[in-house]
Amino acid sequence: MRKLLLLSTSVLQNGKYLEYASDVIKSFFTENGVSKIVFIPYAAHDHDAYERKVKDAFSEFGLELNSIHKSGNQLSTIKEAQGFFVGGGNTFLLLKTLYDLNLLEAIRDRVVQDGVPYMGASAGTNLATVNICTTNDMPIVHPTSLDALGFLPFNINPHYLDPDPNSKHMGETRETRISEYHGIPNVCSPPVLGLREGSWLQVKDDQILLKGCIPNQCARLFIRGQIPKEHEVNSDLSFLLKM
Amino acid sequence: MRKLLLLSTSVLQNGKYLEYASDVIKSFFTENGVSKIVFIPYAAHDHDAYERKVKDAFSEFGLELNSIHKSGNQLSTIKEAQGFFVGGGNTFLLLKTLYDLNLLEAIRDRVVQDGVPYMGASAGTNLATVNICTTNDMPIVHPTSLDALGFLPFNINPHYLDPDPNSKHMGETRETRISEYHGIPNVCSPPVLGLREGSWLQVKDDQILLKGCIPNQCARLFIRGQIPKEHEVNSDLSFLLKM
Repeated sequence: MRKLLLLSTSVLQNGKYLEYASDVIKSFFTENGVSKIVFIPYAAHDHDAYERKVKDAFSEFGLELNSIHKSGNQLSTIKEAQGFFVGGGNTFLLLKTLYDLNLLEAIRDRVVQDGVPYMGASAGTNLATVNICTTNDMPIVHPTSLDALGFLPFNINPHYLDPDPNSKHMGETRETRISEYHGIPNVCSPPVLGLREGSWLQVKDDQILLKGCIPNQCARLFIRGQIPKEHEVNSDLSFLLKM
Repeated sequence: MRKLLLLSTSVLQNGKYLEYASDVIKSFFTENGVSKIVFIPYAAHDHDAYERKVKDAFSEFGLELNSIHKSGNQLSTIKEAQGFFVGGGNTFLLLKTLYDLNLLEAIRDRVVQDGVPYMGASAGTNLATVNICTTNDMPIVHPTSLDALGFLPFNINPHYLDPDPNSKHMGETRETRISEYHGIPNVCSPPVLGLREGSWLQVKDDQILLKGCIPNQCARLFIRGQIPKEHEVNSDLSFLLKM
């Protein structure tokens, strides 16, 4: 079982936090009978401030949300959670904290075995995949492993950005970085979905739908040894579960 | 002892590999009596192709260069090296390979104890610093540790890029990423020098000089708890050794 809503970004330019996806978020939780969400704030340093921001947004959606960092017993909180939201920030910090607190397995069990809805944005979206090897973040801390929750057997690159033909900058483009991942000898690195800002995945069990609010800017799929391919809104990407 | 030449980038736009820094590279090695350089290719997957490219450039500078990956005894090659060049690519891959081959200590000894000149570009520049926490690369592999050669007690962010005021992209800017590094609670993260493309450091023992070929585009220094500060060509940054 898996019910996932995975956003590339939390904010679109000039928008308020999560505003562009408010209808989708409301539907995702209410259609699954969830009115009270457990928030995982560990991608940021200031958990209190992060909770306030996210609580405000969710309360406008008519949803109650509480951050796990205030729970006296985090493991019980996870075991009783109706739904999860894992926010963006630094992906290394998020993963390391969850390893340190020994919470990954419990979240995984709730989502995979009990069908508890999981929403991620940016770092929270990376966390839902096989590993965090395609994060854009700096390794400001060193997690035990790069393996993540593994709800999806492939990688996502959130905030995917096309090369700028006018740039004079010689740092690697996003596409080059992904090709380095796919170039590791003797390792079958999984596909990478470059999810542009304003796009998201809706996953229900074995169905993956690509959604987005910016026309012709949805996602670019990188499969080892193949030419990258564009996918548009409403594409069915369920085939990625069988690769 | 330390004799270092640390470039932000290997290539400037429309230029050939290392061309913009050719005079500096020639002086760095010849003034130190070095005519034969050991190349560390491990930031890339294809070591043979990488060696060919770098060998060609160095031969135009009148310098002989051979890649360590072809050595039958890499430890001896390091112990006998007159000079090192560590090229760019993926910093995680570079560091992991050097940990796996158990070569870091030997390189460190040669440079620190024996005064062997070390040149780095991009990932090779990250490697010369305290750790790779401020690389721009994707964690395509997982090194044992993020600790690097530690010739300098601070961090460098190569290919440093200013925020684009016209960008609609909501991914973190480089400055935001560095502030996440400096925001880790209860950890005194070291200064980060944002080294723009076309800039480099020349280090001789306790003197660090900032150099660059693009006016007003040299480097931006981030110190935890302070306002970031611009530094121009010929700035003396030796104070960073005492922080």
